[in-house]
Amino acid sequence: MSLWLSGIGVSRGIAIARVQKLHAGDLDIPEHSLEPDDIEGEVVRFIGAQRRAREQLHEVREKIPSGTPGEITAFIDTHLLMLEDRSITDTTLAHIRNQHINAEAALRQTRDALIAVFEQMDDAYLRTRRDDVDHVCARILRVLLRSERQLPAKADNEPFVLVADDITPADIIILAQQHVAAFVTEYGGPLSHTAILARSLGIPAIAGLRDARRLLREGEPVILDGEAGHLLAAPDEIALEFYRAKQRAQAQYRAGLVRLKGRDAVSRDGLRAKLLANIELPEDAKVAEENGAEGVGLYRTEFLYMNRKDLPDEEEQFDAYARIVSAVAGPITIRTLDLGADKQVDSGRSHGPTPNNPALGLRAIRLCLKEPELFRTQVRALLRASKYGRINIMLPMISNLQEFRQARAAIDTVRHELIGEGHEIADQIPVGAMIEVPAAALAAPMLARHCDFFSIGTNDLIQYTLAIDRVDDEVNYLYDPLHPAVLQLISRTIESGSRGGIPVAMCGEMAGDPRYTRLLLGLGLTEFSMHPASVLEIKRMIMDADVGALRHAVQGILASTDLQEMRDRIAALDA
Amino acid sequence: MSLWLSGIGVSRGIAIARVQKLHAGDLDIPEHSLEPDDIEGEVVRFIGAQRRAREQLHEVREKIPSGTPGEITAFIDTHLLMLEDRSITDTTLAHIRNQHINAEAALRQTRDALIAVFEQMDDAYLRTRRDDVDHVCARILRVLLRSERQLPAKADNEPFVLVADDITPADIIILAQQHVAAFVTEYGGPLSHTAILARSLGIPAIAGLRDARRLLREGEPVILDGEAGHLLAAPDEIALEFYRAKQRAQAQYRAGLVRLKGRDAVSRDGLRAKLLANIELPEDAKVAEENGAEGVGLYRTEFLYMNRKDLPDEEEQFDAYARIVSAVAGPITIRTLDLGADKQVDSGRSHGPTPNNPALGLRAIRLCLKEPELFRTQVRALLRASKYGRINIMLPMISNLQEFRQARAAIDTVRHELIGEGHEIADQIPVGAMIEVPAAALAAPMLARHCDFFSIGTNDLIQYTLAIDRVDDEVNYLYDPLHPAVLQLISRTIESGSRGGIPVAMCGEMAGDPRYTRLLLGLGLTEFSMHPASVLEIKRMIMDADVGALRHAVQGILASTDLQEMRDRIAALDA
Repeated sequence: MSLWLSGIGVSRGIAIARVQKLHAGDLDIPEHSLEPDDIEGEVVRFIGAQRRAREQLHEVREKIPSGTPGEITAFIDTHLLMLEDRSITDTTLAHIRNQHINAEAALRQTRDALIAVFEQMDDAYLRTRRDDVDHVCARILRVLLRSERQLPAKADNEPFVLVADDITPADIIILAQQHVAAFVTEYGGPLSHTAILARSLGIPAIAGLRDARRLLREGEPVILDGEAGHLLAAPDEIALEFYRAKQRAQAQYRAGLVRLKGRDAVSRDGLRAKLLANIELPEDAKVAEENGAEGVGLYRTEFLYMNRKDLPDEEEQFDAYARIVSAVAGPITIRTLDLGADKQVDSGRSHGPTPNNPALGLRAIRLCLKEPELFRTQVRALLRASKYGRINIMLPMISNLQEFRQARAAIDTVRHELIGEGHEIADQIPVGAMIEVPAAALAAPMLARHCDFFSIGTNDLIQYTLAIDRVDDEVNYLYDPLHPAVLQLISRTIESGSRGGIPVAMCGEMAGDPRYTRLLLGLGLTEFSMHPASVLEIKRMIMDADVGALRHAVQGILASTDLQEMRDRIAALDA
Repeated sequence: MSLWLSGIGVSRGIAIARVQKLHAGDLDIPEHSLEPDDIEGEVVRFIGAQRRAREQLHEVREKIPSGTPGEITAFIDTHLLMLEDRSITDTTLAHIRNQHINAEAALRQTRDALIAVFEQMDDAYLRTRRDDVDHVCARILRVLLRSERQLPAKADNEPFVLVADDITPADIIILAQQHVAAFVTEYGGPLSHTAILARSLGIPAIAGLRDARRLLREGEPVILDGEAGHLLAAPDEIALEFYRAKQRAQAQYRAGLVRLKGRDAVSRDGLRAKLLANIELPEDAKVAEENGAEGVGLYRTEFLYMNRKDLPDEEEQFDAYARIVSAVAGPITIRTLDLGADKQVDSGRSHGPTPNNPALGLRAIRLCLKEPELFRTQVRALLRASKYGRINIMLPMISNLQEFRQARAAIDTVRHELIGEGHEIADQIPVGAMIEVPAAALAAPMLARHCDFFSIGTNDLIQYTLAIDRVDDEVNYLYDPLHPAVLQLISRTIESGSRGGIPVAMCGEMAGDPRYTRLLLGLGLTEFSMHPASVLEIKRMIMDADVGALRHAVQGILASTDLQEMRDRIAALDA
């Protein structure tokens, strides 16, 4: 008898292989009091464990094959940084010394407090970084408890589907070198580390498949569809036939995509689209180029500010920006700081109590305008890096024209200042607005007269338009990129940009999702910025499209006042 | 030398009088351990103090003159309910008994925990109810500490400007009978109790005037402008002349308004507008009618659910709705439950951890659809009450068509059920959507085909459109009812309603603010629902307006892509 299980498909692809479970080895953390004489011995024990954990991670890092996407190495580097972070060490040692408790109990206190901080964050992406804290602390705890988590030791070279509660980035890297065919985790979602890494590595994965380890038998054959999120255990021959054929078709399709590298994204009727990459680290620039991106449509600068107590100074930022700008051949759009006041927990700066709704609070450009020094330092570093390439400055969370003008005036002031100091600055540095607040999309005709470009951030735009927090499990069912309101706002933004004679890009998830490519082409979008791994597939979609026909069809969609008819028309775009 | 101070004008009007300070008598709460033998004595002491506090409040309540707006009595009743609430008593007694601490320290613990709960709430209005807890606990504490807060004992009948850190509703009621000319508080804002009560009583007030008690001298003459939020100490003769004239003009204007009672709100060019009231309590229905409201445009049902451990059952709700529906002569629009999951703290129902952004979470219709029994009970009570008058059911926080259809289907099911049980239900009960999420305003053409009416909730609509939480002091400067995006959404909603042949009302604060009346008329609005106290003034504005000319002028405003030009055109509406 076959068994169907459903989770969240987080990395596409079909896998047909046998189950291999990774046992959690849940950590049972003992707590006991220490005699005064034993305290310094415990301190030494903790420091030793931390050192050993670092060594383990360095070993993993050295085994990463060359050509692996930069973000994978970055995950390990983040963990290494955390292991060296004094906030973990100092706090834990203080707990040992002040409370006279053992290292395991002290580290647990440190971990729980840090996790609470990350769970407060309003950015879905950053909130998942709680997992980093969890993984790093678990690694030290395992050394302390001498309970090494055993990865399956595979003697044969037969591929397997790894089923686990959760998988650390380090495990994923090791497993990727061991013929893992797919990942299944009981927890997590599309933004979990496993999901992100699996997509980067092109390994199919399902997350959030509760009870998977209990329901599946060790060594049992399964079929996994990482797009649909389905897992079929003990499949019959008919199912195997069907999925083998699907697997072959997908392999063929992917092989076809590789041949698109180096070709322009020109539609059947001659529209030339621009395909750009969203990146975070200098290493990603190379991967982006290899995948055929013509430049960078979104470089996020938040990582410079995270996991640290102080703020990065101008020189540190300049170094980072200079490196990335030099590494990117095409233009690079750099987004200025998109953190909220609540996220600067580590910097020792406080803006009073945590707001009730941080997503509706002092964030991004609002914070930058309120803290001119913070903004000025970043802009100085950005402008100084402009001589190494073609940069665009993108301002996040613009909600009205005054904010944009105020920020641009601040940038102009910095430019004059730097020229006065003898710095070399690019002549043309376009300054644009990220359109991610409904007010900005609605006021796009007005903003277009002042901005040099728009870039639509669909993730936040959808959330604010529908008044939902997508990370809130209770309401994420309402998240709907095809909501007529969302289409209206995208259409209005593109049209306003076009009338105002400025380019309009899109850098939210919709831009890299092939399900929406034809719709977006029909809405008039010509610049798509996405995860590097998606570039070739979107290129394929564009090259197959007749944009003129799509534009005509989309007019009908926008004008429809009947929901079912609208949905049917959208479905018909792919027909 | 004169001194100018600026705060937040929270209740309009000019006062010219002498300063009278109300000293806080800040409570210094002692904490000490009890001997086991003293515990039950302390319990008795606490219960005695609570009883005395209740007696004090009853004395205040009995002194309320007849004809006082119902919401004022309601404030006192809320405090009385809280004083009788077992959650305060039981928790405090448990602290005394378990921790062996004195009553004052135990009550402080209870208070701080309750305040923390209210501060989590995402509705600005409900969050101010933390003050209720504070005031009620302070009253008991004062009895325990024998530190009665002294109101100024006025022998003369000379009016005075009361300057305090904060004023309790009970104090306000007593002061209103003692020739108080105006209130100044160091804390609070437009939604504080003082602000709400001052507006109801027509007494000018300024809130948030930090350090007022330090900066002003006892007995010093001042001029207070409750609209501008200005206070001028030791004014010279020229200022006195100016403000006396302004005061006379305002008195004349108000006297003129009274003569409008009973007259229809018809514009100069013959447009008949409908003026409705927003109310919360049956008592308010009378005040609304006295102020010339033709019905109720928003009856909030949340108060039935607040400050209690259980949920109100069908009979209790039926009684409340039957009472209010009978009390209102015209039609009454009842909004179904607009609470968030986080607010049901008292009902013992939990939806997991507090969401990071409750304003973007499981609230209002989302919660009702997720908890069908909660919704069904309310709808049963509402439909049963429909035989007593003309009710409309308004669904809050609709963000897509499916939600509306699902809710309406649930209402239809309840109707059949009740008819089957032999209940008498009104034939026609229009069901409409509150338009307060940007997605709903943008999808209005689609919603208009399914809703019986729209009511625009501008407060939330503005917040979501601009991605701000107005209660967050860091970003409330961005709150802007005149943002072009807001005007676009209002216009789209009204136009869609008009094309769809359904009425469109507005029940947010904009509707009761005379600064926006001409703009709203120009946008095509004909139904205004507001605080009863504003009805006559809005009527005056409408009767003086040429709606045809305003509509023409507003077309130019909506089409403008130049912010300054748009602002100028809006200003010109009043010229």
